[in-house]
Amino acid sequence: MTVTVDHITSASNPLIKQLRSLERKKGRNETGLFLAEGARLIEQALAQNWQVETLIVSNSGAERDFVQALARRAKAQGARIIQVPDRLAGSIARKDNPQAVIAAIRQRDLSLSDLDSADPGLWIGLYECRDPGNLGTILRTADCAGAAGVILIENCCDPYSVEAVRASMGSLFDIALAGSDFDSFNTWRRSAGLNMVAASVNGDSSHVGVEFEQPSLILMGNEQAGLPAQIEAQCDTLCLIPMRGGADSLNLAQATAIMLYEGWRQRGFA
Amino acid sequence: MTVTVDHITSASNPLIKQLRSLERKKGRNETGLFLAEGARLIEQALAQNWQVETLIVSNSGAERDFVQALARRAKAQGARIIQVPDRLAGSIARKDNPQAVIAAIRQRDLSLSDLDSADPGLWIGLYECRDPGNLGTILRTADCAGAAGVILIENCCDPYSVEAVRASMGSLFDIALAGSDFDSFNTWRRSAGLNMVAASVNGDSSHVGVEFEQPSLILMGNEQAGLPAQIEAQCDTLCLIPMRGGADSLNLAQATAIMLYEGWRQRGFA
Repeated sequence: MTVTVDHITSASNPLIKQLRSLERKKGRNETGLFLAEGARLIEQALAQNWQVETLIVSNSGAERDFVQALARRAKAQGARIIQVPDRLAGSIARKDNPQAVIAAIRQRDLSLSDLDSADPGLWIGLYECRDPGNLGTILRTADCAGAAGVILIENCCDPYSVEAVRASMGSLFDIALAGSDFDSFNTWRRSAGLNMVAASVNGDSSHVGVEFEQPSLILMGNEQAGLPAQIEAQCDTLCLIPMRGGADSLNLAQATAIMLYEGWRQRGFA
Repeated sequence: MTVTVDHITSASNPLIKQLRSLERKKGRNETGLFLAEGARLIEQALAQNWQVETLIVSNSGAERDFVQALARRAKAQGARIIQVPDRLAGSIARKDNPQAVIAAIRQRDLSLSDLDSADPGLWIGLYECRDPGNLGTILRTADCAGAAGVILIENCCDPYSVEAVRASMGSLFDIALAGSDFDSFNTWRRSAGLNMVAASVNGDSSHVGVEFEQPSLILMGNEQAGLPAQIEAQCDTLCLIPMRGGADSLNLAQATAIMLYEGWRQRGFA
């Protein structure tokens, strides 16, 4: 390596133990950190000025050009670089063939007050989204569609879990994200003048009839239970994504993509 | 149980070994069987007359009413019912808390000749789709949107894998599905008069400009590589799903849902 690195070889090293703890919510809560694997993801984090605290480089990755370039960049942005045997990198990433680089990154505060409510893009609210794969996929799609931001309402899964970070393909670092209880969220979106549209089995007309050109927020319910009646009662519009007779339901991320791209289509993809 | 069951308690029983082998492609190929977990999925298989060869009931599930009803129905349709300790059920399903029922179901032939090319719905072709979660999710969405069927082209992942079956939420049992090499597929779709539309970074106009009211097939490429140039050259239309500047790409299942629902929207959801 051409940058200064610390070599760690023991699994009982306190830093290794801390990094290993980040796979769990408890470890992430206690440290305020989370893991991102692979050069592509870590480059996106650095490009968006997320604080990479530690960059872990595996022995077998250390001499590769792209790893050295990434290490130099991370170091310049304040990261500590450590080099570890492949088996230790695998024990942090919890897999046999880990990527050449893994980063421990500082979480960002997820307050509503950090959002730019004047952003003209479509907003997405996720009420009790529980599947981190769905959440990560929705962040990726929201990023692709230029959504204004995503708000995690009430008890959602952790956007900083390994699975959510991986499924987001780096969009976690790019899209505005906040967490909130429902009442605070509802106050916020009212003062922002956002028309709240929910996809619901109780909607009586198709999502393509919704007027998405006005400032809008798309509210999506829980994977199993959808939205509770008292939450639906707070919405301005309930719409239905058409499904043929026999079929049951769409996956949450799929339904969100269909709503978001219909809204963006009505806006001429502007 | 009110139906005749065989009790098996040994992990070395040949039937248990065979059922355990179905988690892998090799075991599925050798037996022609695959696994589906949970009453909801198995009910859908029976409703669509898939051949359930063996229904595995866990001891703790055996006395529940819904399990007994399912066992009677499976028995009437020719299944052998076996009851096993929870730990054996878990060893078949490869998890600690398995569902109360697991079925070994006979695979169906996946030939193009079994498809009804006159079906007026939209068709989906997946070229080298490699992620079973994506494949299952696409089957579910295709079912919801009343697609005519899904064709797996060249080297795709196995639709009978546990992960694909699970993600399909039972739509695997409902939607027409075939596998094919590209040339045979292309001959088939030409003779069926299907306009082949691919979503591609090489498309020069948006997917909403495609005329989906004509008989159409949506072709989607591999998760990493998209479609090879020689495959794109065979398409009638290349279109682009709009994305904003910074974002990279959509997940394959998300892109497929966006294409399919745009096509169905143009057809008035008929």
